[in-house]
Amino acid sequence: MRAVQVVGYHQPLEMTEQPVPEATGPWDVVVRIGGAGVCRTDLHILEGQWEEKSGVTLPYTIGHENAGWVAQVGSAVTNVREGDKVIVHPLITCGLCRACRSGDDVHCEDNQFPGISTHGGYAEYLKTSARSVVRLDDSLEPAAVAALADAGLTAYHAAAKAARRLTPRDRCVVIGAGGLGHIGIQVLRALSPAELIVVDRNPDALKLALSIGADHGVVAEGKQVEEVLDITGGHGAEVVVDFVGEGGSTAEGLAMTRQAGDYHVVGYGENVDVPTIDLVSAEKNVIGNLVGSYNDLQDLMALAARGAVTLHTQTYALDDFQSAIDDLDAGRVRGRAILVP
Amino acid sequence: MRAVQVVGYHQPLEMTEQPVPEATGPWDVVVRIGGAGVCRTDLHILEGQWEEKSGVTLPYTIGHENAGWVAQVGSAVTNVREGDKVIVHPLITCGLCRACRSGDDVHCEDNQFPGISTHGGYAEYLKTSARSVVRLDDSLEPAAVAALADAGLTAYHAAAKAARRLTPRDRCVVIGAGGLGHIGIQVLRALSPAELIVVDRNPDALKLALSIGADHGVVAEGKQVEEVLDITGGHGAEVVVDFVGEGGSTAEGLAMTRQAGDYHVVGYGENVDVPTIDLVSAEKNVIGNLVGSYNDLQDLMALAARGAVTLHTQTYALDDFQSAIDDLDAGRVRGRAILVP
Amino acid sequence: MRAVQVVGYHQPLEMTEQPVPEATGPWDVVVRIGGAGVCRTDLHILEGQWEEKSGVTLPYTIGHENAGWVAQVGSAVTNVREGDKVIVHPLITCGLCRACRSGDDVHCEDNQFPGISTHGGYAEYLKTSARSVVRLDDSLEPAAVAALADAGLTAYHAAAKAARRLTPRDRCVVIGAGGLGHIGIQVLRALSPAELIVVDRNPDALKLALSIGADHGVVAEGKQVEEVLDITGGHGAEVVVDFVGEGGSTAEGLAMTRQAGDYHVVGYGENVDVPTIDLVSAEKNVIGNLVGSYNDLQDLMALAARGAVTLHTQTYALDDFQSAIDDLDAGRVRGRAILVP
Amino acid sequence: MRAVQVVGYHQPLEMTEQPVPEATGPWDVVVRIGGAGVCRTDLHILEGQWEEKSGVTLPYTIGHENAGWVAQVGSAVTNVREGDKVIVHPLITCGLCRACRSGDDVHCEDNQFPGISTHGGYAEYLKTSARSVVRLDDSLEPAAVAALADAGLTAYHAAAKAARRLTPRDRCVVIGAGGLGHIGIQVLRALSPAELIVVDRNPDALKLALSIGADHGVVAEGKQVEEVLDITGGHGAEVVVDFVGEGGSTAEGLAMTRQAGDYHVVGYGENVDVPTIDLVSAEKNVIGNLVGSYNDLQDLMALAARGAVTLHTQTYALDDFQSAIDDLDAGRVRGRAILVP
Repeated sequence: MRAVQVVGYHQPLEMTEQPVPEATGPWDVVVRIGGAGVCRTDLHILEGQWEEKSGVTLPYTIGHENAGWVAQVGSAVTNVREGDKVIVHPLITCGLCRACRSGDDVHCEDNQFPGISTHGGYAEYLKTSARSVVRLDDSLEPAAVAALADAGLTAYHAAAKAARRLTPRDRCVVIGAGGLGHIGIQVLRALSPAELIVVDRNPDALKLALSIGADHGVVAEGKQVEEVLDITGGHGAEVVVDFVGEGGSTAEGLAMTRQAGDYHVVGYGENVDVPTIDLVSAEKNVIGNLVGSYNDLQDLMALAARGAVTLHTQTYALDDFQSAIDDLDAGRVRGRAILVP
Repeated sequence: MRAVQVVGYHQPLEMTEQPVPEATGPWDVVVRIGGAGVCRTDLHILEGQWEEKSGVTLPYTIGHENAGWVAQVGSAVTNVREGDKVIVHPLITCGLCRACRSGDDVHCEDNQFPGISTHGGYAEYLKTSARSVVRLDDSLEPAAVAALADAGLTAYHAAAKAARRLTPRDRCVVIGAGGLGHIGIQVLRALSPAELIVVDRNPDALKLALSIGADHGVVAEGKQVEEVLDITGGHGAEVVVDFVGEGGSTAEGLAMTRQAGDYHVVGYGENVDVPTIDLVSAEKNVIGNLVGSYNDLQDLMALAARGAVTLHTQTYALDDFQSAIDDLDAGRVRGRAILVP
Repeated sequence: MRAVQVVGYHQPLEMTEQPVPEATGPWDVVVRIGGAGVCRTDLHILEGQWEEKSGVTLPYTIGHENAGWVAQVGSAVTNVREGDKVIVHPLITCGLCRACRSGDDVHCEDNQFPGISTHGGYAEYLKTSARSVVRLDDSLEPAAVAALADAGLTAYHAAAKAARRLTPRDRCVVIGAGGLGHIGIQVLRALSPAELIVVDRNPDALKLALSIGADHGVVAEGKQVEEVLDITGGHGAEVVVDFVGEGGSTAEGLAMTRQAGDYHVVGYGENVDVPTIDLVSAEKNVIGNLVGSYNDLQDLMALAARGAVTLHTQTYALDDFQSAIDDLDAGRVRGRAILVP
Repeated sequence: MRAVQVVGYHQPLEMTEQPVPEATGPWDVVVRIGGAGVCRTDLHILEGQWEEKSGVTLPYTIGHENAGWVAQVGSAVTNVREGDKVIVHPLITCGLCRACRSGDDVHCEDNQFPGISTHGGYAEYLKTSARSVVRLDDSLEPAAVAALADAGLTAYHAAAKAARRLTPRDRCVVIGAGGLGHIGIQVLRALSPAELIVVDRNPDALKLALSIGADHGVVAEGKQVEEVLDITGGHGAEVVVDFVGEGGSTAEGLAMTRQAGDYHVVGYGENVDVPTIDLVSAEKNVIGNLVGSYNDLQDLMALAARGAVTLHTQTYALDDFQSAIDDLDAGRVRGRAILVP
């Protein structure tokens, strides 16, 4: 089969010919790829930023946002069968550790990450596990939802955690209405009755935000903290979800957070640097957020099936992988780039 | 009546003669002081550290950890009557704002803080509110519990919040087994089945900790993070409660926290300074903690009444206030210093 | 002022002349009535069903769903002022007991119920408490929202409790799409992402239900349990909210509830009569629901202010109270009857 | 191997010779039995009460409370190895359905129940799954803990659910201090700070209850409701856990439950039969409880390992199975009867 591989850091990806993976283990599931999302993390991998962390051996097939059709299943697999349309959770998890047994599978003590630490989905086929595949509703197509497998799932997870405490009188600030943020806004709209205030540098992103459920758009051009305080009667919002995590957003996000409120970190880059006395006297919480669980992905697909969460995509043939990478790097992709074999 | 007042910053306190306060408002309660805790915050007030924050007008009566007997009640007071033995919640709250109506009274939008922002309890009488008095069990004496009104209540609040997620397989690290910490340990023991690991520089404090319910004591002499990781199978603890908040304890505390765990800030001094990528990849939470609510104080008194939380105290006559202050400043107080009029 | 009073059981109400109530206590609030809901409970009061339970002394002014404008406030009132537009929580609560201090004011140990146990709102003025008045958004009129004070608040409370556990993959059955049910549906739609299945005998009520957010309507003509099981893949719904509580709805509701699910009782009449073995083997819960708290009423008004919850009303002049009563008794009221002085 | 089988209903069990089970599936685990609890359910099976429900084909090996040593593992098993000391969760679950993926494995849509619906543990060896085995602490012996696998696990589950809302000011009533109840009391003592009131007909059982952590013992000889109301200031307890479920305990349990409180059903026999108006006006909840999850069993073993939960046992050689059955039937077993091969 064709598979796009990382053959060296600081080198272009290469199209290669690889054997089709086989379901050798009892829980293995081989998926024929219908769409593979091209993510900024893929650019970082090529830059070598994940070399040490992933410990992957080169060459290997990149691509961690995958959806398609089940092609082959292991002997013990009962939840999907050949031909089923599925989206693939980004992790392969053990199913036996305490985290897995608690539904919190992303903290599995013995997990693999296809596309990062083993072969991924810029290819015709991908090997994953029965524990990682979510059947899609008839109305959903793999290429249309592939990017929800990681970027969307991260946004869902943070938004769903944030929504748990939100009531009709609460305000929730979303910092960053880009790829993750605009999924987060849709999820918050579906899961919570709170007033949504979206902050972004880009007025067009705010326009989109307002069209998908935001109540207020605040252009981040220097006065965003004051504006949020104005909208919230001087108190700040009960919850702030920061999809940016750099360029000063952490200090601003904490300043926008009300006493006893939650500031959620999703995007990353800079440090959270805050005096303990401020955390104590205002009793604020800083909440970390990783990608969502298998249950989160099921829930997100339920929202997608009823049209409550949609994603703009731009598809490329798998052979045109380099154009997709170049377009993403140059900021020419509107929504998410998807490779289709 | 006699009342010890702040007459100027960087000046000694002075014993003065003041009129006995009267219950003029409908919810007023005047308490005859049975014990007033002498707190490190009182030293900070004299150093001027609270001058700007409190905005109090000098001279005023200091003392924010108070217990005694009800001497007079306002026209609308129904929850206590003259002669009742009570401990006094440190805040006077409005009862009408959203925080008050939700049981979260410490975030009251219109509160007063006797001893900090208005007249406190280094005196024969104190004026507070019906909303701030908790009746004491017959077995408890005001002078014995006064210090639970603020220091103890802060420890209770953090420990009770921490305990909510603790199960028999979890570990909880307590950093600092001093005044607050040793209350926190007793509360965690009463409220949670978790294994308790206590970290302190002082081996005597650890000995005390082990005698009141800690399962492990770790001397903080440079290898405390490694030792905690050893005890927890290399993972860290599900919950860390930091009663220190300075001298490097925040970075150490976060390093002792397991993936998806909670790091509670109670003590303060330094900054929490942590890369967002660490909060995201390990999905850790930094939880702020202020003093406890009125309900927390009721709960703490229920524990005290059955002997589940005890406090060592050293009493001084009110007239000897300067000795108490000097002893505290010089580190000569074992447990808490209490002034008795 | 004019006030409609109960002068005897099994006798018609009478219009009387009464003195305007005055704010004599520090927390008293006198409200000039803008609208008073006419509720089926009012018919039951006249039939003597509440005689023993309420212990009220006749004659007294009936009416427990009230909204209007603040006319006078007691000396300690700070949350409203003369002229404010308000809706009135049905209970007057003490503010000092454990329930009140926890935000759970409907379980106040020392409460009064205007219209049931003391003078109510079929009148020009009503005396209530600062703890019971919620300021209305400019967009809301007293006569339009009065019926949300009790009927709507009960529906809100149950729906909000039910919504806490509902996720995008869950189903929620609402039994009864009448007065309470159709508020409950709107609240569930605003607060939860669950699929909503509404069961009612009346096809017109189901049509309305579908227009305000229900996903499925099931006509209750004998096969409703099977139909709900069909829609839910044979499992039943994670949550069932029963606004009927009689005519067999409790057994049907429990049969529609999935393993480990919640069956909420809101409407009442018959007994819940279920073998313990069924509760154990299917691990189902039967959840009782009373009217909502003060916080619930604030939340409901926030939803009403943004148009997320609306109510059809039919207004009558206060002098025409008998027509309103007669129309309600004869089933001629569409939505809720409201008396306007 | 020797295996005690049900060969017909209303007939004695028979000792038979059977092949040792083998780990043929990837997740299979074969356990050499160290102890098998003899449970009242086993008597009911012989009486035919489970014939229809279990659908088991006779003859089959009985016994659902098992512990021992791992003898053989399937190809995919990584959590235990040959020789490990384990206790066996009563269910074999699929690991793929929504319930399994949420940690709520007892509601697995595709489960087996060894000893009830397939071969159990009155034998030398038992076949179960990697998902069902919990490694034991060095300090625990299989024969000593076997009965915690089902009876103890049921008590743990109910007590842990009940404990979640219990605070230092709350009261918890335990009805029934027998086999399950006396585990429940120990768990409530370990997990909650509430005051424990135990109700039982047997004064000796109450004596035991007081020695393991109960605060009050109430002899059930007709005035138990009044006595509990007296102890709770006339209000009833915030939580009642009923390990009896027959002989009038459900009505009594509900009468002992405070407004807004939870009445937990664990034991079964009679119907819960309660007017909806009572559930509504007092806002009480009736909570069903099934056996605990795999996580619950891990938690219970953590408590057992530190001595917080202990169980009195009476051991019998496997060959003496009939004596154990007879002694249980005649009420001659103190604690739990355990068969040791």
